[in-house]
Amino acid sequence: MPADTIRELVDERGEKRVNLRIRALVLWQREAGLLFAAFLLAGCAAAPFTDPLPSWNEGPAKAAIVKLVRDTTSPGSPDFVPANERIATFDNDGTLWCEHPMYVEVLFTRDRILAKAEQNPAWRTQMPFKAVIDNDQAEIAKLTGADYFAMVGATHAGHTSAEIRKATADWLAVNRHPRFDRLYTELVYQPMLEVLAYFRANGYKTFIVSGGTPEFIRSFAEKAYGIPPEQVIGTSFAAAYSYDNGVALVKSEARVMLIDDGPGKAVGIDHFIGRVPIASFGNSDGDIAMLSTATHSPSSRERKRFGALVWHTDAAREYAYDRDTSVGRLSQGLELAPRLGWTLIDVKSDWKVVFPFEK
Amino acid sequence: MPADTIRELVDERGEKRVNLRIRALVLWQREAGLLFAAFLLAGCAAAPFTDPLPSWNEGPAKAAIVKLVRDTTSPGSPDFVPANERIATFDNDGTLWCEHPMYVEVLFTRDRILAKAEQNPAWRTQMPFKAVIDNDQAEIAKLTGADYFAMVGATHAGHTSAEIRKATADWLAVNRHPRFDRLYTELVYQPMLEVLAYFRANGYKTFIVSGGTPEFIRSFAEKAYGIPPEQVIGTSFAAAYSYDNGVALVKSEARVMLIDDGPGKAVGIDHFIGRVPIASFGNSDGDIAMLSTATHSPSSRERKRFGALVWHTDAAREYAYDRDTSVGRLSQGLELAPRLGWTLIDVKSDWKVVFPFEK
Repeated sequence: MPADTIRELVDERGEKRVNLRIRALVLWQREAGLLFAAFLLAGCAAAPFTDPLPSWNEGPAKAAIVKLVRDTTSPGSPDFVPANERIATFDNDGTLWCEHPMYVEVLFTRDRILAKAEQNPAWRTQMPFKAVIDNDQAEIAKLTGADYFAMVGATHAGHTSAEIRKATADWLAVNRHPRFDRLYTELVYQPMLEVLAYFRANGYKTFIVSGGTPEFIRSFAEKAYGIPPEQVIGTSFAAAYSYDNGVALVKSEARVMLIDDGPGKAVGIDHFIGRVPIASFGNSDGDIAMLSTATHSPSSRERKRFGALVWHTDAAREYAYDRDTSVGRLSQGLELAPRLGWTLIDVKSDWKVVFPFEK
Repeated sequence: MPADTIRELVDERGEKRVNLRIRALVLWQREAGLLFAAFLLAGCAAAPFTDPLPSWNEGPAKAAIVKLVRDTTSPGSPDFVPANERIATFDNDGTLWCEHPMYVEVLFTRDRILAKAEQNPAWRTQMPFKAVIDNDQAEIAKLTGADYFAMVGATHAGHTSAEIRKATADWLAVNRHPRFDRLYTELVYQPMLEVLAYFRANGYKTFIVSGGTPEFIRSFAEKAYGIPPEQVIGTSFAAAYSYDNGVALVKSEARVMLIDDGPGKAVGIDHFIGRVPIASFGNSDGDIAMLSTATHSPSSRERKRFGALVWHTDAAREYAYDRDTSVGRLSQGLELAPRLGWTLIDVKSDWKVVFPFEK
């Protein structure tokens, strides 16, 4: 169908642009008989008229994201990816929301330990719990990842995931960020919300792959990010099923099943998704395995792939950190990015706003 | 917009029905501005005219399934469930495809052990491998579930999930069922394919929750059932990530991470989906925990829920078995079904055809 025909219809009737697109669809559909394809085209046709990433400055990062989505979703593109293979994975802390000065779930876990200390008197003399209960900063600084996950497991044990999500939601409803004096769920990154929506509008399924626990993240991810519980992968603990008095329960145990951080993110993707992501976004060295899995698995060669790291460079609007922090350290990742073709997202120069409330 | 307007357009131009619907949509969209809602309505309007389950005889099982889908998806219904909560879980062996005379993955695993025996000389003297290599039926009969999963773990170890899926696909392409002389992927249940499609057409996400491994099931589930890899939950093994010479790999280890059978199915659903399913379909006592989780979790009371067991009663067209088999035993489930309100699907009386090739 000639483009002029569409234009004529519009001029003649003075329709708005959205109707132009619908009419084009109807005519095109009549010719091709492919209603669904028409809608895909409508999505593509809409792209030039609206900026899918309005909070991003024009620059290499935005251009790379837009090019990836266009190349993988435009029919006829040599890099076209069928809808069922469109998977994008996102780290949570430092990639979708603020992780400084401390990971939010660490603060929640500390409060859970303090709240449960009375029921667990042994913790008062037992490391790593003792360090937290005594607020002993020197000892806290020495805690390892294993120490931390042991504490998470201990505070989850005996609870259903619904109970942990409820406790998280209650905590997130009242606790505020020390610097911004905002709820933590207000400190999600506006530019990344746009990336999530942009990918989904183009047929991608968006997954969170986090070192945090699914129970914690699932309590807010659907509302904050539009990501449903079944698309949240995290550090998981063994659990036990019971059926008593007509009630079926699954209660968490203290034993770790999967630490979904560092190499565990590649394992988690393999287990939960079973498909190599087309795109993967992280921000720290803990995301290197996840990005490598996306871009450098054996099957990555069959399709265009994309990896990106959010680089926290803006002390004024958020925080500036990379090599010299224990919270979201980005060191090896900065070296690997140019070698492995990953995009660096420079917060200071790439993002017009950081948080939604700045708009 | 008056219905006459649509009719006129059609009469005038002699369009086919599909175009009538499009035109109605376009006009309606102009008035209401909700194109997407229009498409949902178009889907609902189509429902009364076609039988979504043509391979099912009219009876209580079919009626219960249709009622569940209508009650949970019709706007205005007191049991309406928002689209994001529409989750249905399905066992695989004996629920979606034939599991007699032996679970298909058990046969695959036996062949893997035989194929790998030469590389693993220790297996020749080591139980449970020895029993399989010697084809010692008396010893094989004594093997436990743990023995079996130890063998699966041993045959997976050192392989990527892509390699295991390739090996499965190759095996499924040539091995045939001993009685029906068909590929195993031809022995899927036509009535259940219709249930899967019916749920999905009404906004449900369909998941497989199986005692088998995700790698095995993912090799055929997308083509056979329309279920993508990320919606397959199964018995999982630990795995290790590596990055060498520019290639990222995740290789399976022999250690079990989750046995997704019996109580493990409830745990798997909690971990992978994080939401209580609205509907759950199984066929054996190994599915009791999965069905109970759907219908009797604390949060089950907030919504209408549904559990169903396929009861294999047709020795002529397939197999008849329940209490007296070690493959897909259904004993406690038959007692629980009436008490817990689960629907029994009686293959002999409820299914017009069993397999697609009978149509």
